[in-house]
This record gives sequence, structure tokens and C-alpha cells, in this order.
Amino acid sequence: MTKNLQIQLARQRDGMPEDADFRLVEAELPRPGPGQILVRTVYLSLDPYLRKAIRGDHPGHDVLVEGDVIYGRSVCRVVRSDVAGYQPGDYVVAETGWQQHAVIGPEKIVQDVDPASGPLSSAIGALGMPGLTAWGSVEHISKPSLGETLVVSAAAGPVGACVGQLAIIRGARVVGIAGGSEKCDLVTKTYGFDACINYKEEGWQDQFKAACPDGVNVYHDNVGGPLLSAMAGHLALHARVVMCGRPADYHSSSFQGVGLGPFIGRRAKVFGMVVYGYEHDFTRYLRLASEWMREGRLKVKEDHADGLENAPAHFLKLMRGENIGKAIVAVGPECA
Amino acid sequence: MTKNLQIQLARQRDGMPEDADFRLVEAELPRPGPGQILVRTVYLSLDPYLRKAIRGDHPGHDVLVEGDVIYGRSVCRVVRSDVAGYQPGDYVVAETGWQQHAVIGPEKIVQDVDPASGPLSSAIGALGMPGLTAWGSVEHISKPSLGETLVVSAAAGPVGACVGQLAIIRGARVVGIAGGSEKCDLVTKTYGFDACINYKEEGWQDQFKAACPDGVNVYHDNVGGPLLSAMAGHLALHARVVMCGRPADYHSSSFQGVGLGPFIGRRAKVFGMVVYGYEHDFTRYLRLASEWMREGRLKVKEDHADGLENAPAHFLKLMRGENIGKAIVAVGPECA
Repeated sequence: MTKNLQIQLARQRDGMPEDADFRLVEAELPRPGPGQILVRTVYLSLDPYLRKAIRGDHPGHDVLVEGDVIYGRSVCRVVRSDVAGYQPGDYVVAETGWQQHAVIGPEKIVQDVDPASGPLSSAIGALGMPGLTAWGSVEHISKPSLGETLVVSAAAGPVGACVGQLAIIRGARVVGIAGGSEKCDLVTKTYGFDACINYKEEGWQDQFKAACPDGVNVYHDNVGGPLLSAMAGHLALHARVVMCGRPADYHSSSFQGVGLGPFIGRRAKVFGMVVYGYEHDFTRYLRLASEWMREGRLKVKEDHADGLENAPAHFLKLMRGENIGKAIVAVGPECA
Repeated sequence: MTKNLQIQLARQRDGMPEDADFRLVEAELPRPGPGQILVRTVYLSLDPYLRKAIRGDHPGHDVLVEGDVIYGRSVCRVVRSDVAGYQPGDYVVAETGWQQHAVIGPEKIVQDVDPASGPLSSAIGALGMPGLTAWGSVEHISKPSLGETLVVSAAAGPVGACVGQLAIIRGARVVGIAGGSEKCDLVTKTYGFDACINYKEEGWQDQFKAACPDGVNVYHDNVGGPLLSAMAGHLALHARVVMCGRPADYHSSSFQGVGLGPFIGRRAKVFGMVVYGYEHDFTRYLRLASEWMREGRLKVKEDHADGLENAPAHFLKLMRGENIGKAIVAVGPECA
């Protein structure tokens, strides 16, 4: 074990990412210095925001240039540590990038992982930031009441799935919006939503209206733009709207903006949210969510690819919206 | 006194209203039937939303057609009453329309007026719906804290003036936005705002930035559209935005929408509001606001025209933004 496979950006360009934008490189295994940790990547998270970084315009984040290791978070296992509190065999979620091993400082650690909490890969899903995002939205902001109707877009995605299931646990009626019938099946059959509307189908707005006869009390928006505008017309009086995720999309120069008239008429509250406001409540969430996972009340389907070399193809699949469930690359074994 | 002057719509058309859209008519003095009240108009309120009604597209309201009396609210005096609880000499705010006398049912009464509360004309200003709108915004929604910066657009208007002064009473720093230097003078010198920015001046955004060095904690929006988008870039973390008034403008087909990205990044809360949610608190507001008016802490400048026949010209002045203060037509004497 002296080599370290990594995937670098081969070229920075606009447009839909392609295979040729990535290259697989065999680098030397890095050695940790003082105050550093050597970790081995187990589960690598693939996230849509990467597209902006590859294009060189991810606001507020480092932008990737040719030769950079693609960045990303993963569940990883500590191999060697010069940092107090971290021992070989510990699991953490950290900013490792797309590589088999990484040398990191403790500031790159996003969370410590207790393998007893649930499946290891959940630490980048329902038991990680996507779950906490959903928790912030449902528990801290929108607080749907018994019988209220909550709607969530990108309902088959890791945040959407958790938002809906947490709302169901609170006793809400939950309607998802997703792109494709297979995703809608996942949302209703596995996650237990009351309905899921395929926005790629013609006449979906009529279907939506039928699924929400009393209007929408809470809308958790993972998408923005046109869908947010469309939802504005379906809001019930005093509706709460949580605008979440993908802020980069809003900065797109082609984005036409959202007409806010219906929000006034319905006396709606619209909340901009980012997950960083809710880290103080992560421990409580984790305790509750682990329990709900064990009881089968909180499920998250994952779409795994095996081996780091398959990360680019798996990412392109995510970009095409063909993934069913949270996109993850299983880079190495959980143990040993 | 057997005749009743009224102003009717002479023609319904698009575009900026003109003198020829109105006509002065001498009608018979109406007689109240059972369950009705004859009132005499004292102060007629002129409001921008009328423009939409004249154009025939005021959503959710009656639309005016040729020959209709122009609608509007006024402070009026009861002349004769067949309704229990209303006596000749009582003052009410009611939907009378643009006429010297009106026969109304009690459902047309918006509020009872106690002349001891303050100047009679304030009942359609700081002691009426505009004041209550400001109260709902500042006291029930945005709740600016000591030292926070509140910004309000249309700051010289009846709602804006009250929003700013109520926020000052709460200890906030208040910055107005208004169209014209005379309006800005009113806002800073009479209403006591810390600053007022004339958005018709070139470079106003730089001036605005200098006036709000720590960003905007609360923005009360009376305008919508482009100004709301501009403000989004100045919000402080956890800012509150109250979207109020002129919903009709949002329905304009030329409205480009508002980019919501900065609202997410600043974790802002955006509240759609209409005054009807706060009527339960009107009595408390009236008691406090009367006191503040007596103490000189709550002032509202009014722009009066004398005589019903001058209502169209005064309305056109309002449409051109040339009014300084709440636009009112003094139709008849307060007493007798």
C-alpha cells in the first residue's frame, strides 16, 4: 500500500460535465505530518453543487482548476493520527476529495461518526448533513402540525426524503415532487409519502392540485426558480416556505426570478436556510434519527457505485438525474 | 341640501389616468332605507391601488365601469341613521366612494372614529389602516431590536412614515428610501429618520451602502420588484423582510421577478403581509399611537386638496408621485 488513486479535474469548462473532464491518477501515498491525520476513504458523497465548482463559479467556495483533486466529503477511517482524540480505526466524515487516502488537518473533519448510530454510509445521508438540513427545516422552521400538508421538491433526494419522513413522523400529510416515475415510486412506497407527483409528466400541475385539495401549508424547496413560482399559486393561507440548498442555481444569469405577489396574498412566510445554523442541535437529531432508522420510520435509499474509478460515471448519472437515491461511491472496505 | 356631488368614472382604459377619465355629476341626495345610514364625507382618502381599478384589473376587488362612482374610503359624519349604535354626529371611516354623501349599510363601515384620539383625518392615516399596517409589520413581524437597522421604502408615504417612526420608538436605526429630495427632507426632518436615500439620484446604491454600513436587519418593502431585488444584496445575516402593499404591482406582466439567492445566503425570513391579519390589535395600537401623536413622536404629514371637484387632479398628482405626504381630499367641514 504505497500508492493512492485519485481523480483530478482534467479541464475546467462550461456546460454539462463529461467523462473527459476527469482523469484517474496514481499518486504517492501521502504521509501525515505533525497535527495531521491519514484517513482512508470508505464512502464518497457525490453532490450536485460540484457542477458549479467544475465550471469555476461556485460562489463562496474554492474553485477547481486543472490538476486539482475533485473535492468532496466522505465517510473515512483513520489510518494514522497525530491529533489527540483520533485513533486508528475511528470513523469521521471529512473533506477528503475524490481519492483513496487523504492527509487532513482536524479542521477538515465535518463530524465524528459512531458506527453504532446506523449504517456507516448514513453519515453522509440521513445521519449527516442532509438529515440535519431536513431537521432544521422541519423541526426548527416550518414545524408542520398534525394534518397539515407539507410538500417537498427533489423528494427522492437525500434531503427531500428526510424532510418528508420527518414531517410524517410529526403527523403531517406529505406530498413529494420528483422527476420520474421510478423516483415517485421510491417516494411513496419506500418513504411512505401520501403522494408523489412526477413534474416531468404533462398535466402534473392538475395532479398536484388534486393531491393538495386544501392547498400547501409548508413547501420545502430544494429546487428554486420556476418550481418555486409554480408552488406560490398553491399555497394555503399563512403557508411557510423553506428555501434550501443549491443557492448557486439562483445566481445563474438565466434565472428569471420569482414573482412574489401570491406570497403577499397568502400571507406566507419564506425562510432562507442553510444547514450551518443547526449544528448545535446535531447530537439531539442524531439520537432521534438513529432510533427512527432502527424502527424503520426513517429510510434512505442509496445508489452505490463500487470503486473510485467509477466516481466520474456515477457523478454524470447524478447530473442526468438518473440516480435513484443518494449517490455514493464505495471507495474501500468499511473495516481493515 | 338636496343635491349630492359625486365623481364617476367617465371611461375605463389602460395607461396613466387622465382628467378626462373622471366626470363630476350632480346626483340627488340619497335617502337611507331601513338598516342604512346617511353619511357626509369629510376627508376622502386617495390611494394608489385605485389605478388598477380604473384600468379594470384590480384583482380581488370590484372593477369600475363607466358611470360608477369612483370608490374610496373616507372619514365621514353620520347625518341620519337607522342602525343601532350609530347616531347623527358620530364619525366613522367607511367605503363611501368619491361623493359628498353616501347611503351605506353597516358592513361598509371600516372603523368607528373617536375624535378625541387625534386629528380626524388621521383616521385614514396614522390612526387608521396605514398605521395598523405599520404596526403589524413592526410590532408583530419584524420586531427590530435596539440598534438594529430598519429600512423602509416609500418612506414618505403613510405606511412608510409610520413604519419608520414606530421602529424609532423601539430604538432602531431607521433609513428611508423615497423618490425625491423634498420627500427625503420630510422623512429626516419631520419624521426623524437617521437617513433617507433618494432612489431617483444617480449613485443612490452607494449612498445607501454608506448609510447602512452593517447591512439591513429589517426591510419593510412597499414597492416590490427591482427595489426588493436591490435590497436583497444589502441584507445582514438573519434579516427579516416584510413584503407589504401593492400586491397588484406584482401581477404586472412586465414584472421580472425577484432573485432569491441572497435570501438563502443571508438566512433571511421573508413575510408576506396584509393588514387584515392585525385588526384584533387595532384598539391597543390606537391607544398607543394616539399617545405618541400627542407627544410628537408619531407625525404624519398630509397633502390636502379642498373640495370634491379637485379629487381627480389630486389623484393625478399622487400618480405622478408629486404628493408630499398622505393624499387627502377635504370634501366637507368636520362639524355641522
